[in-house]
Amino acid sequence: MIHFHIVTLFPESIEPYLSASILGRAQEKKLIKVSFYNPRDYTDDKWQRVDRKPYGGGPGMVLSAEPFLRAVSAALKGRKGEIVFFSPSGEQFEQSAAKKLAQKKHIVFIAGHYEGVDARVQKILKAKLVSVGPYVLTGGELPAATMIDAIARNISGVLGKEESREDERVASPEVYTRPEILVWKKKKYKVPPVLLSGNHAKIEEWKKGVRG
Amino acid sequence: MIHFHIVTLFPESIEPYLSASILGRAQEKKLIKVSFYNPRDYTDDKWQRVDRKPYGGGPGMVLSAEPFLRAVSAALKGRKGEIVFFSPSGEQFEQSAAKKLAQKKHIVFIAGHYEGVDARVQKILKAKLVSVGPYVLTGGELPAATMIDAIARNISGVLGKEESREDERVASPEVYTRPEILVWKKKKYKVPPVLLSGNHAKIEEWKKGVRG
Repeated sequence: MIHFHIVTLFPESIEPYLSASILGRAQEKKLIKVSFYNPRDYTDDKWQRVDRKPYGGGPGMVLSAEPFLRAVSAALKGRKGEIVFFSPSGEQFEQSAAKKLAQKKHIVFIAGHYEGVDARVQKILKAKLVSVGPYVLTGGELPAATMIDAIARNISGVLGKEESREDERVASPEVYTRPEILVWKKKKYKVPPVLLSGNHAKIEEWKKGVRG
Repeated sequence: MIHFHIVTLFPESIEPYLSASILGRAQEKKLIKVSFYNPRDYTDDKWQRVDRKPYGGGPGMVLSAEPFLRAVSAALKGRKGEIVFFSPSGEQFEQSAAKKLAQKKHIVFIAGHYEGVDARVQKILKAKLVSVGPYVLTGGELPAATMIDAIARNISGVLGKEESREDERVASPEVYTRPEILVWKKKKYKVPPVLLSGNHAKIEEWKKGVRG
């Protein structure tokens, strides 16, 4: 079983995704576990503030180091774990990393917000800087959910009969189902005849061609 | 105002993310609008089935074309709109596309699941094939939320005082806030002295250097 830990100020924003559909079933089957840690529960500021102005000036607010460090300690409790920090300049997450990370026991995701988390957090934790793609997002919640989704698919038993794990098949751009002739706005759209031929060798050849 | 339409079998999985924090506030301020269309409401199958076996064999289930086509029609009601379909072999979504798409009035996201949606849907709608990154996900819900998040940030008024829109600043890997000296596990971690110097020219120079 792999235990995903998410340090976030907005747990309610992604908890429903992680509890729905395939990932929800994976949690019920105890194939994965997902825990949330809100830095707001780990501040000793008397107004529970977790964001302060940046040193050196500039717009926006920066998230304080201590609540995040304490939240990560609460998650790992001294156990070893992969710690992931999101940054547009981080290493691009890809399928091979999803497969590799599926072997881990504990993965901690630190979801920043606003201008970011105090840089000392990443340095102290020696966290891995990761990017899910070349675009800027509001926070680390969607990247964390994206990585959990991509990683969990590689754990045996997570995918059900509706889905297949073979990446090539998932990546196949062309699948067809009933009806054989689809009528839409008075036009007819047919399934490629080869798929109805029953000739398995030809079908496999066609699928390979479509995949390029 | 930009209207995002999401065609999905699992609206409840991402609706909370889109209603929370910055995107929730953007909806309240009527800067963006988000609507969901469940293909299950647009099937005429008497058991409300939306997934059937693939032609040509293979594991898993394929989503039927008609419920998806009807859901998109219900979303656009004859209006023009960008239609996005997710595929690992699609065009990589990036920041420049997020800015460009922020000018649109209607964007429809079709979130597939299982082995995918009948390929005729994409062909009939001339939908754009897009990928948010080089990894395989369970469905199109997270990619849709990711694109909406990245696009919405570029709409004037969406970001509040806690966040700045300037991409370079968001992309800056190093920000610091109080305390000046952070003590963690008996070690001291200081803020880079230049940030406390009050010398704005030097601070700007340092920030540029950090950004690389």
